[in-house]
Amino acid sequence: MVVTTKKNVSLSQGPDPKSSLQSERAKQKFDPQEMQYFLEGSKENAELIKSLTQQMERDPILWTDGSYYDLTKEELRKFTAVKINRVSRYLEFDSIQVFNRRLSLLGVFDPAVCTRIGVNLGLFISCIRGNGTYDQLKYWALDKETAQIKGIYGCFGMTELAHGSNVMGIETTATFDKDNDEFIINTPHIGATKWWIGGAAHSSTHCAVYARLIVDGEDYGVKTFIVPLRDSNHDLMPGISVGDIGAKMGRDGIDNGWIQFSSVRIPRFFMLQKFCKVSRTGDVILPPLEQLSYSALLGGRVMMVLDSYRMLARVSTIALRYAIGRRQFKGDNVDPDDEEALETQLIDYPLHQKRLFPYLAAAYIVSAGALKIEETIQDTLLVLDDAVDDNDEEGIMKAIDAMKSLFIDSGSLKSTCTWLAAEAIDECRQSCGGHGYSAYNGFGKAYNDWVVQCTWEGDNNVLGINIGKPLVKHVMAIEDDGKVVKGSSDFLNQLKQYTGKNLETPVLDNASDIQDVKKLIKAIEVAIIRSCYVTGKTVREKSFDYVGAELVTISKLKAHHYLLSEFIRRVEIFDQADKKPYLYTLARLYGATIVLDKYAGTFLAYSIISPKAVADLRSVVIPKLCSEVRPNVVALTDSFQQSDMMINAPIGKYDGDIYENYFDLVKSLNSPANHKAPYSAALEGMLNRPSLTERERFEKTLEAGEILSK
Amino acid sequence: MVVTTKKNVSLSQGPDPKSSLQSERAKQKFDPQEMQYFLEGSKENAELIKSLTQQMERDPILWTDGSYYDLTKEELRKFTAVKINRVSRYLEFDSIQVFNRRLSLLGVFDPAVCTRIGVNLGLFISCIRGNGTYDQLKYWALDKETAQIKGIYGCFGMTELAHGSNVMGIETTATFDKDNDEFIINTPHIGATKWWIGGAAHSSTHCAVYARLIVDGEDYGVKTFIVPLRDSNHDLMPGISVGDIGAKMGRDGIDNGWIQFSSVRIPRFFMLQKFCKVSRTGDVILPPLEQLSYSALLGGRVMMVLDSYRMLARVSTIALRYAIGRRQFKGDNVDPDDEEALETQLIDYPLHQKRLFPYLAAAYIVSAGALKIEETIQDTLLVLDDAVDDNDEEGIMKAIDAMKSLFIDSGSLKSTCTWLAAEAIDECRQSCGGHGYSAYNGFGKAYNDWVVQCTWEGDNNVLGINIGKPLVKHVMAIEDDGKVVKGSSDFLNQLKQYTGKNLETPVLDNASDIQDVKKLIKAIEVAIIRSCYVTGKTVREKSFDYVGAELVTISKLKAHHYLLSEFIRRVEIFDQADKKPYLYTLARLYGATIVLDKYAGTFLAYSIISPKAVADLRSVVIPKLCSEVRPNVVALTDSFQQSDMMINAPIGKYDGDIYENYFDLVKSLNSPANHKAPYSAALEGMLNRPSLTERERFEKTLEAGEILSK
Repeated sequence: MVVTTKKNVSLSQGPDPKSSLQSERAKQKFDPQEMQYFLEGSKENAELIKSLTQQMERDPILWTDGSYYDLTKEELRKFTAVKINRVSRYLEFDSIQVFNRRLSLLGVFDPAVCTRIGVNLGLFISCIRGNGTYDQLKYWALDKETAQIKGIYGCFGMTELAHGSNVMGIETTATFDKDNDEFIINTPHIGATKWWIGGAAHSSTHCAVYARLIVDGEDYGVKTFIVPLRDSNHDLMPGISVGDIGAKMGRDGIDNGWIQFSSVRIPRFFMLQKFCKVSRTGDVILPPLEQLSYSALLGGRVMMVLDSYRMLARVSTIALRYAIGRRQFKGDNVDPDDEEALETQLIDYPLHQKRLFPYLAAAYIVSAGALKIEETIQDTLLVLDDAVDDNDEEGIMKAIDAMKSLFIDSGSLKSTCTWLAAEAIDECRQSCGGHGYSAYNGFGKAYNDWVVQCTWEGDNNVLGINIGKPLVKHVMAIEDDGKVVKGSSDFLNQLKQYTGKNLETPVLDNASDIQDVKKLIKAIEVAIIRSCYVTGKTVREKSFDYVGAELVTISKLKAHHYLLSEFIRRVEIFDQADKKPYLYTLARLYGATIVLDKYAGTFLAYSIISPKAVADLRSVVIPKLCSEVRPNVVALTDSFQQSDMMINAPIGKYDGDIYENYFDLVKSLNSPANHKAPYSAALEGMLNRPSLTERERFEKTLEAGEILSK
Repeated sequence: MVVTTKKNVSLSQGPDPKSSLQSERAKQKFDPQEMQYFLEGSKENAELIKSLTQQMERDPILWTDGSYYDLTKEELRKFTAVKINRVSRYLEFDSIQVFNRRLSLLGVFDPAVCTRIGVNLGLFISCIRGNGTYDQLKYWALDKETAQIKGIYGCFGMTELAHGSNVMGIETTATFDKDNDEFIINTPHIGATKWWIGGAAHSSTHCAVYARLIVDGEDYGVKTFIVPLRDSNHDLMPGISVGDIGAKMGRDGIDNGWIQFSSVRIPRFFMLQKFCKVSRTGDVILPPLEQLSYSALLGGRVMMVLDSYRMLARVSTIALRYAIGRRQFKGDNVDPDDEEALETQLIDYPLHQKRLFPYLAAAYIVSAGALKIEETIQDTLLVLDDAVDDNDEEGIMKAIDAMKSLFIDSGSLKSTCTWLAAEAIDECRQSCGGHGYSAYNGFGKAYNDWVVQCTWEGDNNVLGINIGKPLVKHVMAIEDDGKVVKGSSDFLNQLKQYTGKNLETPVLDNASDIQDVKKLIKAIEVAIIRSCYVTGKTVREKSFDYVGAELVTISKLKAHHYLLSEFIRRVEIFDQADKKPYLYTLARLYGATIVLDKYAGTFLAYSIISPKAVADLRSVVIPKLCSEVRPNVVALTDSFQQSDMMINAPIGKYDGDIYENYFDLVKSLNSPANHKAPYSAALEGMLNRPSLTERERFEKTLEAGEILSK
């Protein structure tokens, strides 16, 4: 039989993804440069970011390209140090605000540089700011020029080999030697070895050490001490052992290390003593709230929310530009009789939209929350510092209340947003198929560098528990004592309204409810209230440990509530009315996918949404919202204004010429001239090896058998 | 004020994780060696695996240790080739069955070696087996000694730069030149460049090329051709361009490459012609079913289910051994007044159990499905081959039916199990905190190497759609024409029973229903039926593209149904009665977590489970099942019998001495003697740089100002 089939693909010409992107770009309904004012908080911020990006793109040392993905650990370590040296020169001119923005941008295209600086300027100095007196801060940070990455390079000696999350349990000791007016810093056993300390292996000269204060045999808990590690010749001080902890899943540019202290002596005045003091005679004054000494971690957590926004923006830009250029199969939007029709663009498949658009929306929603929490921490720390400087006890207690609220908000945001970004990187990579797995398209390194954010500076699950617990306690206290909750969790006061005989009334009953963002925010409030209420009942019977999973869910819902509320607030006051409809659609899509669809089990189990509404959510609302987002995807991603250098992925470049860009890069980094491997002898030797019989020296042949059997 | 606090941690001694593990091991209720018989299918299999592991552990070239995690891409490439050379010597003695097991084990501790061999012996030879005549197979595989990795090294030229999943759309051409009785293989444009081809960059001598057959200007669709790439001196043939596609997210040991053909001529008899033939005069015979030519991918998909089992086993062993040794905070199980009490083991926190035990259970459940699908493919291919050899048309059609069923089962299993394993690696890593992020504990490399399994040989989402679609069509046909479905999806025939007026009757109504595995399997069936039914309705109004997400969910549920059913079947016939209760508990836990908890939204929306039952699931059933698994976690993980070399993670070693093992490895690979970096000059130069004023040559000083203002 002879049968003919139709051709599926035109052979006359290659793909033209560039035109797909460019022609769409020409049809976008709003100006992405102006939309960026929303994302970065103001026109001024957006312009600052543009000039900083330009400076770094053109800098001969700081710029990055595809060759970055080929660097070995040793090269990464070295280049990271060279880049930090370069960044320090900008730092001599930047204000702190400008420098923070610079670092945040650097974090997009070279996160190891950002972190390796952040350990010094963020953690080390924040620790001194949080725990030291004003004069101690001035001495260590300014007089010694540490803040300009000069003279001193600090590291942050909190975690130990056997203690991470439980900081109160760390075992390094700082024993007061009254005779010599010194502390003796010591690592009692292997478990107390300081571990994961960024900068310890090669860079740091000083360490802010968390150690147990021991005075006269009494253990006063964990306090902070400045311990010099290296002298001005960069040689290790006596009693100091450091080592490189070696290869990591990512961020190999950072010289994380371990430190052991063997009876290292420091003067008494190297103890940080804003809240806690040891007198010459060994009297100890302890702080009003132990957590105050962990405020060093808060800045980092807040920064990670901003990082999450930039990561969501970057990976969704790559995946969506690729989805516009890439065509695959002929979908329902192609006339099956049209032999010449092109294949369908990936982005026009409803499943592809459902996979990617939620992360595009998330970038917008998280940007708003990031700006807000950043303002909040600045204000809160200033108020606290002022109160401490003025010795204003009432002011201190008030500031401590604000700090507690900040702990909840920053902790729930840090954990929820870093998880969300990790998920986004992975989904965006998968959506690019095999090309997502190429190192040169950036997802692999992005993921490997990123995911540590879910673990460090507060493990996400431990944070989730620590945020969920006070919320459940609040609800239990409202129930028991009619307590009134203040601050960002004040919606919990509606407890009675949504429990008891009202426990089963749904808040979202149909497709239109779901798309009403105010109702959606209310639904999240009710979800948190009912989860706390039911979890509280279990806690009374069992324990808080028993409900760990529920606490983490409550924390996530709290973060989504914060993010959506703040986003809507910002949209309402945004001065460019023409862009608001797009922003509201993104909020609806975020609510429908990242919140409702993902937590459908919770919302259904607590009767916050009706089963019919969930069915509609999936079959009607999400596809509809996606189709509303679809026409302006190019503008929505262009609005992030991430340059090709920051994107650093040939399939995600601005021009959309995915195949040419990608093939060019692959060929420039891997010359086709090298078609024989350096190790080709091993391959050729294997393929051309003599027969087994010959290599066995013919010892197992019939002939040998006859001889050997005689 | 002077206040004293209690000490949290004893300073007198270090942690002793080893005793925690060893003392638990002594108390386990069953023999893990015997339990392995279940996991590997028989005592004989288990013993074979033991001897193969021993051989490779002791082999001077194949063994692996922590230094593996420090290798650069170039080193990985080279060592992989050297290892393949070594493996080829075992291959000369192994039967195919033994060699497949050897490769599966190798895949655990060096997946790149496994894949780089698999491309040759799996894909290349399978392609010839699937598409070539018996004599073609004998010639290329046996006579040329390819099957012993000798003479020829094959690669699999399917995907192109612009075409992956849509194989029917690939654009490389094979044009028949009647005058010379040759095919001309050509790459018409950049988009048709063969891309991702494992082995092409450095190893391969031949390629099984998927190209469009063009005869007399007519396009007959995609067929397969053997095209030599390199001669016996390993030099490239004329018209062949190859290149290295460079760095990847993982599996850098594989020399994936691109290939362009520029009018390369091959004899007509290099076309694989089991089903499709071109005569000397250009007459074309086409195969009865196009998909038959993609059967090459089936073997790989089946292997990936087995890989998923071994990966689930490996990472859950690491995470659980760590969770036994690691202590953190004093949980509810510690008397708060007991100052000397140790902190709580991670594994005793309910949240930690909920995070990890499902993957332990999944390893067991997946092992059963992996064995079953492996048997099925062997049987099906044999039947097909026999029918083809006998020219038995009825037999061929019957075998094609079996192949279709195999496409569904292997596709849903491949996609579902590879996603599940990816998720497991990530969750297990996170559960080990910072130490999970160290390269030496294996999770990073495991993840990076693994996740390509979700993309290659059938993108998981595309597979999901292709599996969901026929199931929905089946249900639509039952509805419309009363069709009767056969094979592993025959439960769909219960359509009427569970839809219509019975649409809202829950199958699982309370905590006891959930724990009845038979009811649970029934509930999955009903979930698939109702999902197909509702999705079918949407399809009638919209299209299949519109319901992509639903199709993927249906495919996942289908896989869970297959896995759980097969697991239960195997438990029932397992000859060691004392181990059955543990196995049933694992099945219940798998159902409760991986199925019900994860798809709670779907089960609730389709009223398969009641809201009350979901609440109970989370607050009662899952914690209860976890507490049942808890006492025998050591035996359950020891049953995988993965040696320390296969585990290759110091925190996951058999002895449980997590800190000593880990610190020793870090120090041996990163000598503390190197406390100054090779690039230390960049750091020291930065820290000890002169002041800005001096480096600006004092040009901006007041003095300069006075002079320059004059």
